[in-house]
Amino acid sequence: MKAEIIAVGTELLLGQIVNTNAQFLSEQLAALGIPVYFHSVVGDNAERLQQQLTLSTARSSLIFITGGLGPTKDDLTKETLSSFTNLPLVVDRQAMENIEHYFAQRQRRMTENNRRQALVLEGATIFPNETGLAPGMAIETKSCTYLLFPGPPSELIPMFERYAIPYLQGKRADSSVVHSKVMRFCGIGESELETRLQDLIEQQTSPTIAPLAKEDEVTLRLTSRARSIADAEAEMREVIDEVRKRVGEYLYGWDQDTLEQVIISEFKQRAYTLATAESCTGGRIGALLTSVHGASDVFLGSMICYSNQVKRELLQIPQQMLEQYGAVSEQVAARLAENVSQMFGATFGLSVTGVAGPSMLEDQPVGLVYIGISHAGQSTVQTLRLAGDRESIQRRAAKYALYALWNHFRTGQ
Amino acid sequence: MKAEIIAVGTELLLGQIVNTNAQFLSEQLAALGIPVYFHSVVGDNAERLQQQLTLSTARSSLIFITGGLGPTKDDLTKETLSSFTNLPLVVDRQAMENIEHYFAQRQRRMTENNRRQALVLEGATIFPNETGLAPGMAIETKSCTYLLFPGPPSELIPMFERYAIPYLQGKRADSSVVHSKVMRFCGIGESELETRLQDLIEQQTSPTIAPLAKEDEVTLRLTSRARSIADAEAEMREVIDEVRKRVGEYLYGWDQDTLEQVIISEFKQRAYTLATAESCTGGRIGALLTSVHGASDVFLGSMICYSNQVKRELLQIPQQMLEQYGAVSEQVAARLAENVSQMFGATFGLSVTGVAGPSMLEDQPVGLVYIGISHAGQSTVQTLRLAGDRESIQRRAAKYALYALWNHFRTGQ
Repeated sequence: MKAEIIAVGTELLLGQIVNTNAQFLSEQLAALGIPVYFHSVVGDNAERLQQQLTLSTARSSLIFITGGLGPTKDDLTKETLSSFTNLPLVVDRQAMENIEHYFAQRQRRMTENNRRQALVLEGATIFPNETGLAPGMAIETKSCTYLLFPGPPSELIPMFERYAIPYLQGKRADSSVVHSKVMRFCGIGESELETRLQDLIEQQTSPTIAPLAKEDEVTLRLTSRARSIADAEAEMREVIDEVRKRVGEYLYGWDQDTLEQVIISEFKQRAYTLATAESCTGGRIGALLTSVHGASDVFLGSMICYSNQVKRELLQIPQQMLEQYGAVSEQVAARLAENVSQMFGATFGLSVTGVAGPSMLEDQPVGLVYIGISHAGQSTVQTLRLAGDRESIQRRAAKYALYALWNHFRTGQ
Repeated sequence: MKAEIIAVGTELLLGQIVNTNAQFLSEQLAALGIPVYFHSVVGDNAERLQQQLTLSTARSSLIFITGGLGPTKDDLTKETLSSFTNLPLVVDRQAMENIEHYFAQRQRRMTENNRRQALVLEGATIFPNETGLAPGMAIETKSCTYLLFPGPPSELIPMFERYAIPYLQGKRADSSVVHSKVMRFCGIGESELETRLQDLIEQQTSPTIAPLAKEDEVTLRLTSRARSIADAEAEMREVIDEVRKRVGEYLYGWDQDTLEQVIISEFKQRAYTLATAESCTGGRIGALLTSVHGASDVFLGSMICYSNQVKRELLQIPQQMLEQYGAVSEQVAARLAENVSQMFGATFGLSVTGVAGPSMLEDQPVGLVYIGISHAGQSTVQTLRLAGDRESIQRRAAKYALYALWNHFRTGQ
């Protein structure tokens, strides 16, 4: 079974909207174990849609088409597929009743083109539309099966979940499941991770292992096809152990975990609290931590000490230290972490001071960042040299500060 | 000139990420007057990419390819295009120097696969990568032109804007220019804006006017096709005057302006300074302000007062006030703004206190947010009732706080 997804709509080709439907369907089909080989987008143009149908029908057995089921002139998916498959359009009584009911209820006049939404290809399996007017459908021909869905995600998503999934499961020849697990790493680059795991990645048996670089982190997706989820998990266990042995020190979480969630949850378990002093990150660490519901049990607050005056007057960094070492220095990072933890009465203090750019600061190069961690009267400082523009440096510095904190916390136990 | 966009990446076919690059490029190409007829996505598979190249080359003259330029084995865009066009891969010296410099600076080991990122097709026009390692390029053949870009949007977007746009403008056959201007509004909804400007929008002559709702703001894109940029600007002037007359009070900036830039620049002109006290926004206002280069002249710092203890002990909010009115109250918002401006010695104090959710706080409903502004001994408070999940409420509260500050500052003059 080879699948592909076609989205129909000129608004996609103009960049007015993003094709989130393709992502939703791909994710769902991956979970159903149906491999997707292509996505395509064509405009509201019968000739080009016909070309696309010819191409797709030749290479795929399952074709998902989104959009172009609406009432207006430029909605021509059904008409084009009808002439392509030689299946006539007929009225679906149930859909027509829904449309009539909709207009009657709102006391609005139903225009002729609204009736077009009730047309379906003869012999189609209908997917009712519970959040809109145009029904979806599945059309089975000798060469392949076409599944049509309305374009608005608010109609497509519930229709897919309620009607298309059972339909697709019914078509499946075997009863195997496809199960995925994501391992999340921080502090190691994609190519380094891949080099260390090369033999495992190249095996390409079940489970398969696929690395992916996300913003400032790397993930590893393990996918198993097995008779049950339990079988799939059992199959993964050995590989996971091997991955842990090689790069376990960078593994901070699983599946949808974020570094900030992991930190908040581990601190909470130990009744630890945290205060931060952010200079060049300007509040990004606070924003990450407070994105977690329940952060208030752990994160007491932060001093954004963007100016030296604030470092001096509110965080008690001695003027002499600022002059001798500069605001971007190991010494100031350590003292900021110590003082902010005292000021807020927190178990841990975390500080960041650095040069976000675009220009140098106190003769220090762009991308130089110090991260200070203070705990139980002891402080440590890490030095980073980050690349990128101002925005990337600030974002990465915040992320690495959380990574450093997590790492310190984990290895310091 | 017919264009199409191909994205390469199995992660797109698995639904792990959304193809925002296709949207970005489509929007940009529409603005340049280059029509896009197809989007396609293929996986990291040489054979299927080759099939796609054959198809696309037959129907388009300008082919944009994103992704697959990275260091790993499954990055095979360049190799596939090289064998498709019979153009050998050669080392780009500048790119190699960047890569070597990157690893030397970080004192990290450079693996062999990192060198692959410096390979380019012979004769290509190189687009330097200023926010990553893999360069982009344009390859002109008899039948069509291929433009290659890295997959991460943080690399693709600046590369496209800085290098690909001038390249594409140089290739244009006619000498007319397509010139756009974006007007940015805050504090007014899209449908309200559209209603007030309906007759102008419907005209659809040059300049065309297209409203677009972005995150928490609305923009209006004016596009003119004329003999020169000066002619285009002249053509726009009358329309702009009319738009200003109707909705000028919400217009905060132009083109790439952001609210935070406008605030920093207007405060700087008057030598004003700002300090903030962020409760439910947790640092997001600081993060927005410090994204602006030169923010340190204006933004002294912030107290993220996520816990009541910090509000009481560090920001001197009386315990009695917290008990009587609650932490989420007009009274506390006003006092936070006053106290933080005093504490930091700033001309303006800005505070946010509210309920980000998902659960109620002190019996106050999710989405209730107070914004306090203090200036010259006077303070004002605005009440917001925001919709959305935790993340949206926090983001919107930060944005509205900046809007409230800008509005206060502008009308209070």
